[in-house]
Amino acid sequence: MESEYYTFGPYKIHHKEVFYYTDLSYAMVNLRPLLPGHVLVCPRREVKRFVDLTAEETSDLWLTAQKVGSRLEDHHKASSLTFAIQDGPQAGQTVPHVHIHILPRRGGDFEKNDEIYDAIDVKEKELKEKLDLDKERKDRSLEEMAEEASEYRRLLL
Amino acid sequence: MESEYYTFGPYKIHHKEVFYYTDLSYAMVNLRPLLPGHVLVCPRREVKRFVDLTAEETSDLWLTAQKVGSRLEDHHKASSLTFAIQDGPQAGQTVPHVHIHILPRRGGDFEKNDEIYDAIDVKEKELKEKLDLDKERKDRSLEEMAEEASEYRRLLL
Repeated sequence: MESEYYTFGPYKIHHKEVFYYTDLSYAMVNLRPLLPGHVLVCPRREVKRFVDLTAEETSDLWLTAQKVGSRLEDHHKASSLTFAIQDGPQAGQTVPHVHIHILPRRGGDFEKNDEIYDAIDVKEKELKEKLDLDKERKDRSLEEMAEEASEYRRLLL
Repeated sequence: MESEYYTFGPYKIHHKEVFYYTDLSYAMVNLRPLLPGHVLVCPRREVKRFVDLTAEETSDLWLTAQKVGSRLEDHHKASSLTFAIQDGPQAGQTVPHVHIHILPRRGGDFEKNDEIYDAIDVKEKELKEKLDLDKERKDRSLEEMAEEASEYRRLLL
């Protein structure tokens, strides 16, 4: 069943940001994508830790991620995918609701980043960026996100 | 069924390194752990990309990872877990056989790294380390790995 809003921890996600759903899972575009096609797949039930999902939810979540990842990789003409769960605050989780990050990857995609860091900032950067896919990035408008979601919705028909 | 060797891409993994298995998946200690308890969960069938797993294999793989992660988090007195698949070479995959990285995480765990980098090395480091869990690290002996595996085997009884 489609919802008007989907639960994501303490937040309500507008259905326009959601491009795929099953009875147990949903996939949404990202407020702050790190790369084109960086999306999130979540259980519909609000569950903080991965271990708290039922077997049925766990299977459905990953079958959804597998399907979504494959379609987005083709769509973005990528050649690999990163799948990651930051399961708990010490792993970089900022929203206490299980979510899989999916990132279509291409050769050299992270080389586009032109920031120059001082050596002194490296440890902090390293800690934050290495495994922290929830880090602060610029927010996008609902309009922009709705447009991307509607593009992806067609891929998953 | 237990095997003497498990297939991991072109490699044969000795059963002493494997601490848990089902009919479709197995879990092994890591040759070059990034943190204590950094282990890998793989499908028993040699499959390069995540999308190539059957629904049954996908479910079993993640139910195995969920169980293994939970036991290792407790065992290592950690408070979070990182789960990641580097699915394809552009995502950092170096062994062409699907594998989930599981890392028990604690506050500040990456601050232990005392290396000082020159700013000029940051981009390369960033690219290699951000999402590349397969990066080069010091090899361990089979003896050391067998000992860790036997410790973990007891956790999963």
